[in-house]
Amino acid sequence: MLKETLEQGRIVTDEALDRLLPAADQYPSSIHRAMRHSVFAGGKRLRPILCMEAALMVEGCVPVGVEELGAALEMLHTYSLIHDDLPALDNDDLRRGLPTCHKAFGEATAILAGDALQTRAFEVLAEPETHANPEARCELVAGLALASGARGMAGGQMIDMLAEGRTLNGDEITRLQALKTGRLIQFSAEAGAILGRAPPAQRHILAAYGRDLGAAFQIADDLLDAEGSTEETGKTAGKDAAAGKATLVAVLGVERARAQAAVLAAQAAGHLDGFDEKAGHLRQLAGYVISRRS
Amino acid sequence: MLKETLEQGRIVTDEALDRLLPAADQYPSSIHRAMRHSVFAGGKRLRPILCMEAALMVEGCVPVGVEELGAALEMLHTYSLIHDDLPALDNDDLRRGLPTCHKAFGEATAILAGDALQTRAFEVLAEPETHANPEARCELVAGLALASGARGMAGGQMIDMLAEGRTLNGDEITRLQALKTGRLIQFSAEAGAILGRAPPAQRHILAAYGRDLGAAFQIADDLLDAEGSTEETGKTAGKDAAAGKATLVAVLGVERARAQAAVLAAQAAGHLDGFDEKAGHLRQLAGYVISRRS
Repeated sequence: MLKETLEQGRIVTDEALDRLLPAADQYPSSIHRAMRHSVFAGGKRLRPILCMEAALMVEGCVPVGVEELGAALEMLHTYSLIHDDLPALDNDDLRRGLPTCHKAFGEATAILAGDALQTRAFEVLAEPETHANPEARCELVAGLALASGARGMAGGQMIDMLAEGRTLNGDEITRLQALKTGRLIQFSAEAGAILGRAPPAQRHILAAYGRDLGAAFQIADDLLDAEGSTEETGKTAGKDAAAGKATLVAVLGVERARAQAAVLAAQAAGHLDGFDEKAGHLRQLAGYVISRRS
Repeated sequence: MLKETLEQGRIVTDEALDRLLPAADQYPSSIHRAMRHSVFAGGKRLRPILCMEAALMVEGCVPVGVEELGAALEMLHTYSLIHDDLPALDNDDLRRGLPTCHKAFGEATAILAGDALQTRAFEVLAEPETHANPEARCELVAGLALASGARGMAGGQMIDMLAEGRTLNGDEITRLQALKTGRLIQFSAEAGAILGRAPPAQRHILAAYGRDLGAAFQIADDLLDAEGSTEETGKTAGKDAAAGKATLVAVLGVERARAQAAVLAAQAAGHLDGFDEKAGHLRQLAGYVISRRS
């Protein structure tokens, strides 16, 4: 059942992305091809699925605009991956089993494609198709910006860069990851509540759920890097350790890191205790993020 | 009189930027210091002044939020300069007489600082302080995104990169520059109309004014590069010719390029014929952009 939800969410997100991104043959085609290369490299679409399920939980049905919102979240996420993979940052050659954007298109094009994906994400959120109420659209734009800017994701990427070669303790790593990947995952759940015009209490519950889910997700990601093969994860395996990256796996060891991910996932699901079966998929997602193999 | 307007516009924009950007000592400070380094490197604040004067023309007084709007335009513009200066793109060491962002802070920080400036620009536009009406805020977000994304400024930067070493004709150069610098200048004038909730006819007139002004501005910029000294312009002089950059000055020669800039500036002012003295500053600005020495 969760499997179907994930598959269905992936399909509708991919359709929305195809509809909302400029055509690959539009002039100048290299930037559009580069944007599409990275966007359609086969992501799980976790963030769109989170916002869909959150909206479903608060509204009881899938609201209009959820596909646009999901596509915008995925564009923002993809921009961050493209820039993070650049030689000046993580210098990664593989992403989701394909050459990273700068490997396939060159650095200049990768920088511009990432830039344009960020821009398009905000454009989509501001368009009437995403929500009939412009107040909701403004909340989505401001919320995504807060989650992804200097006080959120970009700040986390900065801390990650500064930390290379230094030794961070567990608390510092948790803080770094909360910014770098946590905030956007948290906002993805919260955005579903904004789209559904949920009362503040529900929005806060979904934000708390997203925060714990994001933390669990990141530990699981680091475990995959430490244990998975390049083939399974589509990323260069063992890259974190080789680069001296600060991860909880490095600090706690595999077993304690796995236990901590399980605690966080249970905590995420626990925030939804006051909801009925409409929260079923979100509860299952908490289990999924720590058990996935890629 | 125009001189005072320019000076006053610069001061209020700088104040708004200082208020709206994260403090330099906020953690992680390197990204915030890099953002501020480039934002406060002494720009003319042409885009904020354009939106202020356009809003003044349609409203008759300076509307609330014009400083926020101007600051957002300048953040977006500065992000584009930071990324354009990167080694993978124009590889420039000097900007406004100071080391470019990557020269001062390193490439990784420059990429992230540019990213975060773009994000913050959209965040500011979506906040209630910019306009009480969320519909207006959404129009500003969507308009800025259209002007600066793959179908606007970022697309123009892409074409510029692709053109290096190739010979473009005059029409191709005009098209490139209309995207790379023209769209954002055009939108700056248009944004003043959006802020003032001007009727569509006035918005179109201001867009036409901004389009021609932007084209004149770019030719003047290329003339400064060809003729000015590094000291005057604060940029590496003669860089365009050395890089084989496509400019109208290279294709038409200095005299004909200068004449074309004058025609465009007159055309820009001509769009405002139906307006009274409230359009005085915008008319003078058209003369200013082609006569400035830096």
